[in-house]
Amino acid sequence: MDYSAVRLRKHEGKRIRSGHLWIYSNEIDNKLTPLKSFTTGQPVLIEDSNGKALGLGYINPNNLLCVRLVSRDYRKPIDRSLFVHKLKIALSLRTRIYDKPFYRAVFGESDGLPGLIVDRFGEHLVVQITTAGMEQQKDNIVDALTKVFKPESILLRNDSNSRNAERLHSEIEQALGVTPQRIQIEENATQFIIHPHTGQKTGWFYDHRVSRQQIAKYVQGKRVLDVFSYIGAFGIQMAMAGAEDVWSIDISAKALDELQENAALNNVTEKVTCLEGDAFAAMGELKEQAEKFDVIIVDPPAFIKKRKDQKPGLKAYRKINEAAMRLLNKDGILLSASCSMHLKSDELQDCLLAGSRHLDKTLQIIEQCHQAQDHPIHPAISETRYIKGFISRVISAS
Amino acid sequence: MDYSAVRLRKHEGKRIRSGHLWIYSNEIDNKLTPLKSFTTGQPVLIEDSNGKALGLGYINPNNLLCVRLVSRDYRKPIDRSLFVHKLKIALSLRTRIYDKPFYRAVFGESDGLPGLIVDRFGEHLVVQITTAGMEQQKDNIVDALTKVFKPESILLRNDSNSRNAERLHSEIEQALGVTPQRIQIEENATQFIIHPHTGQKTGWFYDHRVSRQQIAKYVQGKRVLDVFSYIGAFGIQMAMAGAEDVWSIDISAKALDELQENAALNNVTEKVTCLEGDAFAAMGELKEQAEKFDVIIVDPPAFIKKRKDQKPGLKAYRKINEAAMRLLNKDGILLSASCSMHLKSDELQDCLLAGSRHLDKTLQIIEQCHQAQDHPIHPAISETRYIKGFISRVISAS
Repeated sequence: MDYSAVRLRKHEGKRIRSGHLWIYSNEIDNKLTPLKSFTTGQPVLIEDSNGKALGLGYINPNNLLCVRLVSRDYRKPIDRSLFVHKLKIALSLRTRIYDKPFYRAVFGESDGLPGLIVDRFGEHLVVQITTAGMEQQKDNIVDALTKVFKPESILLRNDSNSRNAERLHSEIEQALGVTPQRIQIEENATQFIIHPHTGQKTGWFYDHRVSRQQIAKYVQGKRVLDVFSYIGAFGIQMAMAGAEDVWSIDISAKALDELQENAALNNVTEKVTCLEGDAFAAMGELKEQAEKFDVIIVDPPAFIKKRKDQKPGLKAYRKINEAAMRLLNKDGILLSASCSMHLKSDELQDCLLAGSRHLDKTLQIIEQCHQAQDHPIHPAISETRYIKGFISRVISAS
Repeated sequence: MDYSAVRLRKHEGKRIRSGHLWIYSNEIDNKLTPLKSFTTGQPVLIEDSNGKALGLGYINPNNLLCVRLVSRDYRKPIDRSLFVHKLKIALSLRTRIYDKPFYRAVFGESDGLPGLIVDRFGEHLVVQITTAGMEQQKDNIVDALTKVFKPESILLRNDSNSRNAERLHSEIEQALGVTPQRIQIEENATQFIIHPHTGQKTGWFYDHRVSRQQIAKYVQGKRVLDVFSYIGAFGIQMAMAGAEDVWSIDISAKALDELQENAALNNVTEKVTCLEGDAFAAMGELKEQAEKFDVIIVDPPAFIKKRKDQKPGLKAYRKINEAAMRLLNKDGILLSASCSMHLKSDELQDCLLAGSRHLDKTLQIIEQCHQAQDHPIHPAISETRYIKGFISRVISAS
């Protein structure tokens, strides 16, 4: 094999050896292996400061997060076979857990494939490639996915913002077959129509599958409010789980139309009410109309997208959860989640505590929510743990 | 009402207002309200530095953790009615979640009743009183429990170590009826005989009920090792969930006898093998005999009981989990839990990562474990969040 070596500075091999997959540009020995000698996305042999091989990866000299390790076994090349091997390992976890072909099939670093996301919707795969190194491997990836999953179609939704940092352009590409505009999927025994070409990200968020099971236990015969409902993943499942009445708030009329379609698909149309608008405003109106709910689900888009959004983001989490608590009936249940990578679980908990105290309520955390098993956490890479949530009981202070 | 006031120093009311229930002795204005003027366990009115009432609680002038707030509504006395009110609120959470009367009915601070633990085993209650303030309320507590739960018997297992800090003596007292030596309970559709008079703590650990459901998904047709098995809560449930073979390690011959009895009760005797001995030694022997398992459960007693045990404790967690990983078959599943209050979830995760890297393995965290809903977390009191655990998949590094 013929991989250019990228040499790390003294002591900088330690993090890789202890499990991490990332190398930053300032950790590279720029004299021995100058960054400017590499092309964007080029596969490389990673060496410690003594020239000992640590593994194979790929490099983007333009990105501060410069090198990602793909394989510790530097004797086997990064090729179609390697991808087939890694995809089989990823698939065997999913088939162990799920009896139907609906799941995130590859979750980037956590499945040893940095820069690659694959969602499986039955016979259709929707892929996100987020790094230049993976972009270079596109043909190998598509070939390997075809071999391992034998899908009818593969759609590359390469239009995510994370591509900007890698100077990759935004595109949607049909890599195999023809992906339908609408696909019917199943989650927790509920049916949904998703839109892989035009929906958010890949068209569906499998990450809250377990949270949806958790909260379903509390809704029997209850009145539920689903804030930031999108196409009804939480809301329709709550209707199916026995909720008497489900109100859904979303800012997108299109999402709410799709939610109604999903309600019809599951024969729960009569239980569903949609409110189009900004979540804060809509909740204010519900408060004015003295509407109350037994269970409220607050799963907003990331309020903290970048570290600098920390302060206003925290304020927004505090505000939205307090607004939810104001709408809760006596002895109500609140599911509050966050997908902000930069928000710690403790910080979300503090927002809930502060909101409850401000309303002179007592909060008991009865369950914690995390991303589902098809989004495994890489124990060395905290960024792979992005979903956090709490199911709390909100009672009068006494 | 006639409660002696305990006055806080300037700014020291803030933590109580923001939700906490504890006051340390150095936060008290010892000039205005000298500690030595209070008797052990005396009920008190808690005031901020301006004399504004914050609530009612009780004091132990001998303990650094000096005052615990029982009620923010200082106009209602601490009496039988207050306990009845609080017990009803606690009970309504449990009846909402569980359809059978087997659960922790009161979890101290998290249920607004600092110093009181109540486990319900059908018609029998087993109680732990851990503070002098609650000890003073014993008659009110027994009366209120009798009224709310209408139990056949109440046993006070007041023999926990935590009573030492409060200078309370150790005793077991029959407060109502006659508690049988053996009680049959049910958890996750599995039957167990427990020993409320002689078992550890109250005789049973309901706190891992959800973890036991979580790991059950992975054991169908598998070979399971349950380390620190005690009387088989995990192990027997795994046999019931379809494990082919369950090996249990415990240092107590008595616990293993009871485990065998529980196996017989559930008709899974032929699946169960018991190994009596120190967990580290027993796992070493299994390694020598080249025994391998598909799923291993490591739920040790607290290795870190006090802050000063931190370093050796961490080492022990690292060692026991690495030993478990050595016994795992290819693509094995490890449930690793800790009940050490002083061990952070991230620290346990780091132990798992270090162990896996030392064996040149890759670890994927697929689920996180927490105490069950009948052990709610008080969001202001981190000590109430004591169980943490991870379900990981351990695969070859590649």
